[in-house]
Amino acid sequence: MQKRLGRQTVVLERPSVILSHAAVGGKQEGEGPLSAYFDHLCADSFFGEKTWEKAESAMQKIALSKALEKATLSPEDLDYILAGDLLNQCIGTSFGLRDFNIPFYGLYGACSTMGESLALGSLLISGGCAEKAGAMTSSHFCTAERQYRMPVPYGSQRTPTAQWTATAAGCVILGCEGPGPRVTTVTCGKIVDQGITDANNMGAAMAPAAYDTLTTHFAATGTGPADYDLILTGDLGLLGHQIVTDLFARDGVDLSQKYQDCGMLLYDIQKQDMHAGASGCGCAASVLCGYLLREMEEGRWRRVLFAPTGALLSPTSSFQGESIPGICHAVTLEMPEKE
Amino acid sequence: MQKRLGRQTVVLERPSVILSHAAVGGKQEGEGPLSAYFDHLCADSFFGEKTWEKAESAMQKIALSKALEKATLSPEDLDYILAGDLLNQCIGTSFGLRDFNIPFYGLYGACSTMGESLALGSLLISGGCAEKAGAMTSSHFCTAERQYRMPVPYGSQRTPTAQWTATAAGCVILGCEGPGPRVTTVTCGKIVDQGITDANNMGAAMAPAAYDTLTTHFAATGTGPADYDLILTGDLGLLGHQIVTDLFARDGVDLSQKYQDCGMLLYDIQKQDMHAGASGCGCAASVLCGYLLREMEEGRWRRVLFAPTGALLSPTSSFQGESIPGICHAVTLEMPEKE
Repeated sequence: MQKRLGRQTVVLERPSVILSHAAVGGKQEGEGPLSAYFDHLCADSFFGEKTWEKAESAMQKIALSKALEKATLSPEDLDYILAGDLLNQCIGTSFGLRDFNIPFYGLYGACSTMGESLALGSLLISGGCAEKAGAMTSSHFCTAERQYRMPVPYGSQRTPTAQWTATAAGCVILGCEGPGPRVTTVTCGKIVDQGITDANNMGAAMAPAAYDTLTTHFAATGTGPADYDLILTGDLGLLGHQIVTDLFARDGVDLSQKYQDCGMLLYDIQKQDMHAGASGCGCAASVLCGYLLREMEEGRWRRVLFAPTGALLSPTSSFQGESIPGICHAVTLEMPEKE
Repeated sequence: MQKRLGRQTVVLERPSVILSHAAVGGKQEGEGPLSAYFDHLCADSFFGEKTWEKAESAMQKIALSKALEKATLSPEDLDYILAGDLLNQCIGTSFGLRDFNIPFYGLYGACSTMGESLALGSLLISGGCAEKAGAMTSSHFCTAERQYRMPVPYGSQRTPTAQWTATAAGCVILGCEGPGPRVTTVTCGKIVDQGITDANNMGAAMAPAAYDTLTTHFAATGTGPADYDLILTGDLGLLGHQIVTDLFARDGVDLSQKYQDCGMLLYDIQKQDMHAGASGCGCAASVLCGYLLREMEEGRWRRVLFAPTGALLSPTSSFQGESIPGICHAVTLEMPEKE
């Protein structure tokens, strides 16, 4: 049986092993500091398709195909794929996966989807319900702008707290054995809403959820920042990262030495004029599937707490005066000790 | 370990037990033949809220609260809740669950969500990752019309193949032991797209997915229609039900004696003028959580194959000329033999 620590945290009896991973990005991602870590970069925002929505599906197809190829697997080898995206009714995922013929559990976790899919995929494997599973998500700057804010050609001005939705996708193939990083614990997040209503300040809306999940995880596992080589939240950006750091400082916990955020890593924020940093499901997904897992495999970090965050709003909920609920799912990634 | 039959089917080592269930409905549901099975009916489509979207969240709150009450549990007793809905970014769910403080995995399975949430919740319990979990979904006629078709006050005419989105929610509380019906096997669906492009004919779009999942389930488990007291698909309606029956007849399998569809049960189709029947996440959810589980508990059926179907389209995908992918997740529900 799994070892359960409180309601939210499971220590996996049979840790899932990351067999392969692939990251796909667009033009801005190719011009950023993590450029070399991508498996596929395309300067055409349409990825050869007729619409941006179809481009987002194309990114998922490429990410899954690359990840399967790197693990020398075919789609039939996967028992399940767990995936979702930001588009209304998650069409990036359903049309991206349509031709792969893989049993599919669709997720909606907004920008926490990479964490949610890794968490559920790992729980299914550890519980003996699957041998191999995919975990995937994506986002696209142009589909997200059109859907959440203004059509891109309108050229609306961005506030300083705004983040830039990554045009990117990431896919992880999980299995039961191999030399790669393992998912050893999973902490499921709760919905946390501190009343932030500014849809151009997602970092502030999501930071309390990150703080809630991280403190729950630390308390349940009896660990603290010192026990991790890196704590990496999802796309909180500059402001959200600062809020999480401050919330922990108030508790007397110094996170600063170990703590980074995917939204601050994907772009050169100053040079690329990215305001508060990157966001979107594809941000945490591509930082994980490119930079983070590659560097773990090369020995830079052994134990990483990866905690993507999502804002569970819609334009309709904002128009109706609602505040922005956030969520954060955390997984511990560990490279096995060398024998 | 779980017994896995092929890629898609898991026979649960530790079947999850349905501790309680609650169904919430609106005016039309209260005027239909299943009226007496609802735990809460409200003739006000706003459920006392200011908008229909908030009404949908209110329905989820009522369904979850009622189900917890019936099981004499509080929200803190649930390890997880798995839920989703049809609204963009699943706001029915995120705002409905916001104040419950329950660890949350968000799902998007369109109208298959009741099946997906039951499946994943049961797999988590059987795999030792949870002791108690909620599975929930909802839909609302007015939010769905506004989002997918036309605002209700526009009064647009419906085609004969159109289905009526249920204003309803259903919630199941799953646990490890008790006298109630058990989830004994789970079959995860694949995305199936036979090229149907008519967004007013969801039954035809989803029927091939139901056929695919049911045939896979029968083959994997070595069972056939004779082994079930009832086979109940999600909201295929009159037309989809006929297509599934015909597809099986082509294989020489007579489904007709055992086979019903939630979309044909919720309303008096003729009298209520419901064209091809009911649809929406809330249709399968409320038929399950009101009628089906109550009648199982009362001994009418012992072994039921419950298979809700979903159409993974969005208005955007239809505008861009895409066909409609479908999915169907199936679970076997069994009442334990009396000692």
